Amino acid sequence: MIDRGRLERHIAELSAIGGKGTAVTRLGLSREEQRARTLVGDWLAARGARVRRDPAANLWARFDSAGSEGRSPSILLGSHLDSVPEGGRFDGALGVLCAIEAVESLMDLQAPLRRPIEVVAWADEEGARFGVGLFGSAAAFGRLAPGVAERKDRDGVSIGDALRSLGETGDPALARREPKDFAAYLELHIEQGPRLADAGRALGVVSDIVGIYHARVTLRGRADHAGATIMSARADTLAGAAEIVLAVERIARAHPDGVGTVGEIAVRPGAKNVVPGECVFSLDLRAARGHEELVRRVLAEVERIAHARGLQASVDELARVEVTPLDRGITLLLRRAVKDVGVEADLFVSGAGHDAQNAQLSGVPTGMIFVRSSGGSHTPREFASLDDAALGARALAIAVRELAA
Amino acid sequence: MIDRGRLERHIAELSAIGGKGTAVTRLGLSREEQRARTLVGDWLAARGARVRRDPAANLWARFDSAGSEGRSPSILLGSHLDSVPEGGRFDGALGVLCAIEAVESLMDLQAPLRRPIEVVAWADEEGARFGVGLFGSAAAFGRLAPGVAERKDRDGVSIGDALRSLGETGDPALARREPKDFAAYLELHIEQGPRLADAGRALGVVSDIVGIYHARVTLRGRADHAGATIMSARADTLAGAAEIVLAVERIARAHPDGVGTVGEIAVRPGAKNVVPGECVFSLDLRAARGHEELVRRVLAEVERIAHARGLQASVDELARVEVTPLDRGITLLLRRAVKDVGVEADLFVSGAGHDAQNAQLSGVPTGMIFVRSSGGSHTPREFASLDDAALGARALAIAVRELAA
Repeated sequence: MIDRGRLERHIAELSAIGGKGTAVTRLGLSREEQRARTLVGDWLAARGARVRRDPAANLWARFDSAGSEGRSPSILLGSHLDSVPEGGRFDGALGVLCAIEAVESLMDLQAPLRRPIEVVAWADEEGARFGVGLFGSAAAFGRLAPGVAERKDRDGVSIGDALRSLGETGDPALARREPKDFAAYLELHIEQGPRLADAGRALGVVSDIVGIYHARVTLRGRADHAGATIMSARADTLAGAAEIVLAVERIARAHPDGVGTVGEIAVRPGAKNVVPGECVFSLDLRAARGHEELVRRVLAEVERIAHARGLQASVDELARVEVTPLDRGITLLLRRAVKDVGVEADLFVSGAGHDAQNAQLSGVPTGMIFVRSSGGSHTPREFASLDDAALGARALAIAVRELAA
Repeated sequence: MIDRGRLERHIAELSAIGGKGTAVTRLGLSREEQRARTLVGDWLAARGARVRRDPAANLWARFDSAGSEGRSPSILLGSHLDSVPEGGRFDGALGVLCAIEAVESLMDLQAPLRRPIEVVAWADEEGARFGVGLFGSAAAFGRLAPGVAERKDRDGVSIGDALRSLGETGDPALARREPKDFAAYLELHIEQGPRLADAGRALGVVSDIVGIYHARVTLRGRADHAGATIMSARADTLAGAAEIVLAVERIARAHPDGVGTVGEIAVRPGAKNVVPGECVFSLDLRAARGHEELVRRVLAEVERIAHARGLQASVDELARVEVTPLDRGITLLLRRAVKDVGVEADLFVSGAGHDAQNAQLSGVPTGMIFVRSSGGSHTPREFASLDDAALGARALAIAVRELAA
């Protein structure tokens, strides 16, 4: 039985860490994320889990139930505890809290489980600070890009530094686990779009996750006096970036199911009376079909526009995750579980990236449940009701029970 | 006689404040600008000037020479000590240093002067931090916009706060002087463009200063998840800003002598996987002819683009300075002085704003000398040679001697 009071209390306590009103800022590898891990780890330890942090700052809690064979592959479930800057209370957090609630409800019931259960809270899923999304799961499944620990934030602090300041060794690759240790990975997450809310459904099941390309583009031109430099003599990097922003929009609009976003931008020197001599901005390109073509078209425009304006462009690829179909068997199982709690279980393509990709692409049979959010995600307006969250936790518990039986 | 060694020493000592290599960051109303004022004030006090700071943080040094009548209007000369972020060693600074050198050379010669001489270092000419350029001279000539002391920087610190932390009262309007106190204002400044360098001339004289419009534009849309929000459902403020940046470029290019620049831009929340829900950027629009038309066209485009995209636009006008013809008599005098030091004295329109505008528009007969800069301005590459600086100081001394005689 789902304990709604416990779930509600957990949501409130976790929201307070990095929270201000309904806004939450709990960046990956920050003190706030660490406090969230401590809170969640304490709850799980109190229920008898063996709790540990790994060198990528992931939190693991293992339950070897009475009937479980110590060396058999475990059922893994979880999500992440970090947020974007000024994000909300549910993106990531709800998946960890519903995983905990699912496990606690099974223990309350003293359900017989033959497999070990592991709850995981992946570190730095959003990649808001260092530009490396799905960080913790990539480390655990051996999918980190080489040298990623050297990547720095705006203040020159590297991922390795951040890990060391959290008490880790600074080498996230040491977090690696074997995919064969896991019989399945289940992740519950709020839907980042409005489809469940529009359809009036509490839950859905994910069939595929879109391909995602992340890059940081740097344009170099020349800083000049805004008053004394005639228009034809300029090498204005912001004007170049503006053309690229509009090209991203135009190309993504023309793509059947593509989206393209420039969400970060900065100019140097950054004074109103100086032509920007340098401009750095992010690229986020996604599609479930034709993803490579989308990326290729945008990069060709970056090159063309920079060349036409006499600017130097360099593109620093931060992440490229292929389109990920989730496991058919697990997906069927989740659809049955969702139907068992009384919800029509439609299939959705996820436009957002998820740690589930790293599990699935490493060979762990993986599935995802979406919970309706009435205000989108990555914003203080994101909202999943307690009713919907409890339904999600129940469906998760049903699936875990079946997988572990 | 110009003392080249002294001038060279002064340039080096002043450059060291906020300096790193050839780059200087000495923002208006900062500790660094304050240290520069103290250094310069000490030099002037050592030559017998009465030195004081006013409530707008301007530095004044008054010489009542033996022959001068205490109450007669003074000859004012100077420039500013602040820089843009990562600016250079000469923009502003050279004008103060050449003013000091001109006065010191006249005192070395014991030149007979009937009028008092005042050297001024205007505070926060660049307006890099608070967005209010020509701040100190506007305060002294009663031309500050109402409520300007409440204007805040990015960290929420107001101009009033900044002044108080420098030991002033926080009310810059108290810095007001009477225009009739001054018989003339002379300012030497590096040319911000390449015309003198291209013509192979060390000095030039300014006939007019362009009209300048400064504003901060805020676009408000909606922050959404970059993966889960289809292109047609977005209210992306950076895409709107990009259209405006390109409109500014297009309109300025079509204007006979206009320039338009977006030199600052910031998005919120500012994460690569979030559609920017808010975007703030600067506008800098200048022209010697048809300035109002240039501003009108750009603002019409801001409104049109925001409306077409479903964004809310607000335009916060920071400064609007009309086209300023400098004083004919002073300009003639400066051309003679420049010729006296052996340089063909061509006339130039200044595309940059100068404190000289506030003096001239308040009725003080005002003139300006440009010194060649080989690397533009507002950049660590800006460079005026010691030879050219010494020629400029000598021309300034000749003009002061004639005006004060």
